[in-house]
Amino acid sequence: MNSPVIPINRIGILGGGQLARMMALAGIPLGLQFRFLDPAADACAAPLGELLQTGFDDVATAAALGQSVEVATYDFENVPAATAAAVLQHCPLYPGVAALQQCQDRLVEKRLLQELDIAVPPFRAVDTRADLLGAMAQLGYPAVLKTRRLGYDGKGQAILRQPEDLERAWQKLGGSGLILEAFVPFEAECSLVAVRSRDGDVRAWPLTRNVHDKGVLVLSHPGNLGSALQAEAEQVVQRLLLHFDYVGVMTVEFFIKGGRLLVNEIAPRVHNSGHWTIDGAVTSQFENHLRAICGMPLGSTIQQQPSLMFNWLGNLPDRQALLAHSGLHWHDYGKQPRAGRKLGHATLTAAIEGELQQSATALARQLGGHWPQLLQQLFS
Amino acid sequence: MNSPVIPINRIGILGGGQLARMMALAGIPLGLQFRFLDPAADACAAPLGELLQTGFDDVATAAALGQSVEVATYDFENVPAATAAAVLQHCPLYPGVAALQQCQDRLVEKRLLQELDIAVPPFRAVDTRADLLGAMAQLGYPAVLKTRRLGYDGKGQAILRQPEDLERAWQKLGGSGLILEAFVPFEAECSLVAVRSRDGDVRAWPLTRNVHDKGVLVLSHPGNLGSALQAEAEQVVQRLLLHFDYVGVMTVEFFIKGGRLLVNEIAPRVHNSGHWTIDGAVTSQFENHLRAICGMPLGSTIQQQPSLMFNWLGNLPDRQALLAHSGLHWHDYGKQPRAGRKLGHATLTAAIEGELQQSATALARQLGGHWPQLLQQLFS
Repeated sequence: MNSPVIPINRIGILGGGQLARMMALAGIPLGLQFRFLDPAADACAAPLGELLQTGFDDVATAAALGQSVEVATYDFENVPAATAAAVLQHCPLYPGVAALQQCQDRLVEKRLLQELDIAVPPFRAVDTRADLLGAMAQLGYPAVLKTRRLGYDGKGQAILRQPEDLERAWQKLGGSGLILEAFVPFEAECSLVAVRSRDGDVRAWPLTRNVHDKGVLVLSHPGNLGSALQAEAEQVVQRLLLHFDYVGVMTVEFFIKGGRLLVNEIAPRVHNSGHWTIDGAVTSQFENHLRAICGMPLGSTIQQQPSLMFNWLGNLPDRQALLAHSGLHWHDYGKQPRAGRKLGHATLTAAIEGELQQSATALARQLGGHWPQLLQQLFS
Repeated sequence: MNSPVIPINRIGILGGGQLARMMALAGIPLGLQFRFLDPAADACAAPLGELLQTGFDDVATAAALGQSVEVATYDFENVPAATAAAVLQHCPLYPGVAALQQCQDRLVEKRLLQELDIAVPPFRAVDTRADLLGAMAQLGYPAVLKTRRLGYDGKGQAILRQPEDLERAWQKLGGSGLILEAFVPFEAECSLVAVRSRDGDVRAWPLTRNVHDKGVLVLSHPGNLGSALQAEAEQVVQRLLLHFDYVGVMTVEFFIKGGRLLVNEIAPRVHNSGHWTIDGAVTSQFENHLRAICGMPLGSTIQQQPSLMFNWLGNLPDRQALLAHSGLHWHDYGKQPRAGRKLGHATLTAAIEGELQQSATALARQLGGHWPQLLQQLFS
């Protein structure tokens, strides 16, 4: 454990989106330099390092990335296996290929969770129309049909509420490997972001309550779900981290039902629901992910003050108006606006929880639209 | 006051050192882009924007900088007047030329402070050897002879403790315009960092106690000097901000003597003694400076938790060992080591002051050398 440490300073990231960008913003003060591989010429992390602009299936460039850095990571879970392997020929890749592969496939992920005795909603594999009919007969309406691969933010999903929905869902998704999941009438959604170092130290941030709008995260509020759920969530994540001999940040999303946790999905990476840690925790998820993969000691994951994150989708609200809110921290990802695209977020912090909720309520009112109603869900 | 606001996003900075670098790290999440003018090819802010590598006296390039951005600022006070004027032909330059010029010259600065009824140590202008002899006769030993211009971090200074020191001091500094200041047997040194917005809103961070080693700041500890000194310091800074119709961050360094404040010097910029605000305040000095010059509302300057900054001069201590300290925030400026050069800093934060002081004591012991003794000065 105490072998001499050769400092790691050059980091490669597969992906150059906002997660890579926020890793770089956290890593530059640590003395780290960044190189990104991303197909987009305007990848928003690019101004913070060097961009290798190429497809994620370009194994030659992935190998060159691996050669030019001391450790590599990724900012999305759909890294092709051959690309990961090409990087791995030349440098360590964390969180690692096992986590990457098992979290790329919803069916494999769910089966792993079952093997580890972790509660998940009932599910069935669906490859044919006959499978779907059989699975629906077992799980009943409502249920959610999902692609096993490449789904995120509500994409690649169809809800089946009644028999008439079945044909449409099959037309939309049939043909690729699918999974049918029982719809969980949850009381709330939450997530645990945790980190494991190279030598096995594990830290978790407080469980964060989340609200989604059309499948996409819009609000996160950490630290108010109580110690019993926190302990339950930490046990689940601990089991997964050990299973993978995991290094870096892992995020597990849960449904809360009947006061207990059911795992919805695993993200082998820093996560949108952990963005509040930049402004609200002693150490952010981005800094601790980098500390972990570089073999540095982990920083404290203690929450410093009440915090609440608003996600900006499709367009940014008026910066000038919003910065007038005391304790509002603005995070513009530097991306071109596009319908539904994650362009930035803001985290409100306050000295005490009551003040935070007042401030968030005023902000939601100012933002208008669905915001007051979404915030109501968070505080319900 | 409520004229429609055109968002400012492109910032020019005269200087590309660590202060410019930390401005950029704070400004990128605000959606800002940076262009630096600096003679050094390896200016440490350069990786965070675009570098115009040229001398500070290159007025043509300074004009081009002004043309290509929406607002400009500087990260050091010795910007030549012609360079500032060249930028100003094309865009606003904050904190402004008046502050820049008056703070470049210790004598002009001291006379201004006197005019504004702000307490300063006794001083005399010294241009000739006869001036020096006359001034010494009036102020008495010990005294400090300083160049009026281009002094910082203890450079361009000589202490006169006894008549024998006079000749050596004159040999070292004579020839340029000088100022002789009475040596203040201070109880402590401290500084106030404050910010003023374009529409006159003023916020100050807590008064910060500082310890210098050979004229260079090594330790800063905010928030423990009491409300009377805080109010006195804020009054002084308020008067200066109004005098200059100042926009941006200003720092005033004080001596504490007999429980009152004497101004040592003014820095028309973000300041080393405000680095703790990155990790310890709701809004950092860097973010608020940018908010001010861009015409955005100012963020809260409330201190979030007990904080203490250690400066790294000449070489960085072992990152791996130091990151094991809970609540330690590492700031590497990405500069090549050189004797006495400011290479980085670390801020310790803790939930309560007692814990912070324990943690700082342990860190100072680990660092060894003069550190335990320097820390003792801070807590004395």
